[in-house]
Amino acid sequence: MEFHIERPDPAIRPALQAKIDNLTKPKGSLGRLEELALQVGLIQQTLSPELRHPQNIVFAADHGIVEEGVSIAPKEVTWQQVCHFTHPHGTGGVNFLCRQHGFTLKVVDAGVDYDLPKDRGIIDLKVGRGTRNFLHGPAMTETEIEQCLAGGASVVRQCFEEGSNVLSFGEMGIGNTSPSSIWMSCFTGIPLAECVGAGSGLDSAGIRHKYEVLSQAMANYSGDGSPRDLIRWFGGFEMVMAIGAMLQAAALRMVILVDGFIMTNCMLAASKLYPEVLDYAVFGHCGDESGHKKVLDALGARPLLSLGLRLGEGTGAICAYPILDSAIRMINQMDTFSGADITKYF
Amino acid sequence: MEFHIERPDPAIRPALQAKIDNLTKPKGSLGRLEELALQVGLIQQTLSPELRHPQNIVFAADHGIVEEGVSIAPKEVTWQQVCHFTHPHGTGGVNFLCRQHGFTLKVVDAGVDYDLPKDRGIIDLKVGRGTRNFLHGPAMTETEIEQCLAGGASVVRQCFEEGSNVLSFGEMGIGNTSPSSIWMSCFTGIPLAECVGAGSGLDSAGIRHKYEVLSQAMANYSGDGSPRDLIRWFGGFEMVMAIGAMLQAAALRMVILVDGFIMTNCMLAASKLYPEVLDYAVFGHCGDESGHKKVLDALGARPLLSLGLRLGEGTGAICAYPILDSAIRMINQMDTFSGADITKYF
Repeated sequence: MEFHIERPDPAIRPALQAKIDNLTKPKGSLGRLEELALQVGLIQQTLSPELRHPQNIVFAADHGIVEEGVSIAPKEVTWQQVCHFTHPHGTGGVNFLCRQHGFTLKVVDAGVDYDLPKDRGIIDLKVGRGTRNFLHGPAMTETEIEQCLAGGASVVRQCFEEGSNVLSFGEMGIGNTSPSSIWMSCFTGIPLAECVGAGSGLDSAGIRHKYEVLSQAMANYSGDGSPRDLIRWFGGFEMVMAIGAMLQAAALRMVILVDGFIMTNCMLAASKLYPEVLDYAVFGHCGDESGHKKVLDALGARPLLSLGLRLGEGTGAICAYPILDSAIRMINQMDTFSGADITKYF
Repeated sequence: MEFHIERPDPAIRPALQAKIDNLTKPKGSLGRLEELALQVGLIQQTLSPELRHPQNIVFAADHGIVEEGVSIAPKEVTWQQVCHFTHPHGTGGVNFLCRQHGFTLKVVDAGVDYDLPKDRGIIDLKVGRGTRNFLHGPAMTETEIEQCLAGGASVVRQCFEEGSNVLSFGEMGIGNTSPSSIWMSCFTGIPLAECVGAGSGLDSAGIRHKYEVLSQAMANYSGDGSPRDLIRWFGGFEMVMAIGAMLQAAALRMVILVDGFIMTNCMLAASKLYPEVLDYAVFGHCGDESGHKKVLDALGARPLLSLGLRLGEGTGAICAYPILDSAIRMINQMDTFSGADITKYF
């Protein structure tokens, strides 16, 4: 699948910067809010950007590599959590945050190894009942990677038609820090050992075993080494669907809120296919997974928050939303020095 | 003025921690949200804490030390900004943030050198038309420090009677990074040079001059060296009023959101009078003023945000409010593992 992503036209930048500089505050004194207002103004090509109908899309799937004991959590937690946060009462971690910040939650079955209930509004894009174990060969086929990219893109087009211009993406997939760590190492050159962490709670012996399994999987790799092939070989269905979603969102000039370790690695992988996607990315949160700060640094990304979250589901991205919202309110609601009769002293 | 501040009774801590640990997430995976829920649960002595009617109180005053050229901004900006953010249209930096997060804004004239308009709802607690220049003697008298402490406390009692249990405090006072830097140095032992920064935009020559003035002021000090005397000698009316407000808020078991460099130093000073006040403090933001991180470290405080803000007015604290709100929603709205039928794997 092809995406047509354009970099935002920089011609509007001086006018945006002038508007921000003339608001009633010492120049630069609203820090990251000023940078965000500039970024969203560029994305939307307007001096009066706005955020409409934020949605959080959680992609869920299972991973063949879990057979190798790389996660402390059993695989069944994937479907249990999907059922949990699509329950009408909505008492999962992602639910209260979506309610708090006015996000619609969409949950996509990208490839969960379970027959999920039909009455929960789960979007059924199941590619298979989990990926193959990439210790012994590619996690997915050519057909499957295409299905994932197209599936993610289709959900984003639906959001766009519903009027959204800002999306966050999250994931639920026991085992998915493993493919994330491999992508991180492949795409940044950082040694695998620095990319592997505790996931949902491995102890040091568990982390060592996980490292050995992933190291062996990388040694066994026999593909062509292209970003696309590495994505296919090691990826999870939910992760590749997130890549398709990110690329489609950028193609539609939407703001992309990037969540934690897994979504950061999906953005990294997406940028290896289409570097322009990064212009649309706002990194929400640096989590506790040990490699997260390093992959953010490799991307030159400065996340808005660092709250020690490691839950996934989009929670870190959603927590950062009010800061993005503040930036947009700043540029639209603050007065200028001349309008407010305040001595401009700088 | 005396305050009666008790440390929260720790007896409820194990039950609070157990409730947080049993929510449907890997233990600890909501990071700082879990810590905040615990802190507010302790403050409120309940397993179901709540936040009611947040208010941001901006104390404003002028400073005699401004005569020495320690600020890039002229003194008139103090009253201009007070008029600006009490304007019915409310287009200042603090206004859009208060609207966004549902804060009521109270503005207090603690000692602005101007006859402020009577029709703006500004709370008139004017102690004088700015402090004396502390290069040559104490900034305020014994009577004035008492007036400030009592004034700040009275505003907080009013908020309490209005049903608030969470407050943030901000300031507007050209020149007030100067007293803040001196307090910081006196109360932490950090050399003055590391406590002095650019304020609202000094260049390096300006910072050097500011340092020399403040250094001379400290050399000229001839008081008794007690916290109370240092507060009186170097303080601003708005800053001492904030101290009174913080102490009263703690005495009433309210959550105190601490803003930037100046408010952090007010909390530091308050803690030298009553160390228990720190149990009620949530540090919102680490700003760009060069000494801010150091004073936070000296307090053992880990601010929720680091967005490069340096506007004051309470803006950093208000930006952090949704995170505090998330923590309270987490403990009240998330389900437990047993309630949600999810395998607890740790």
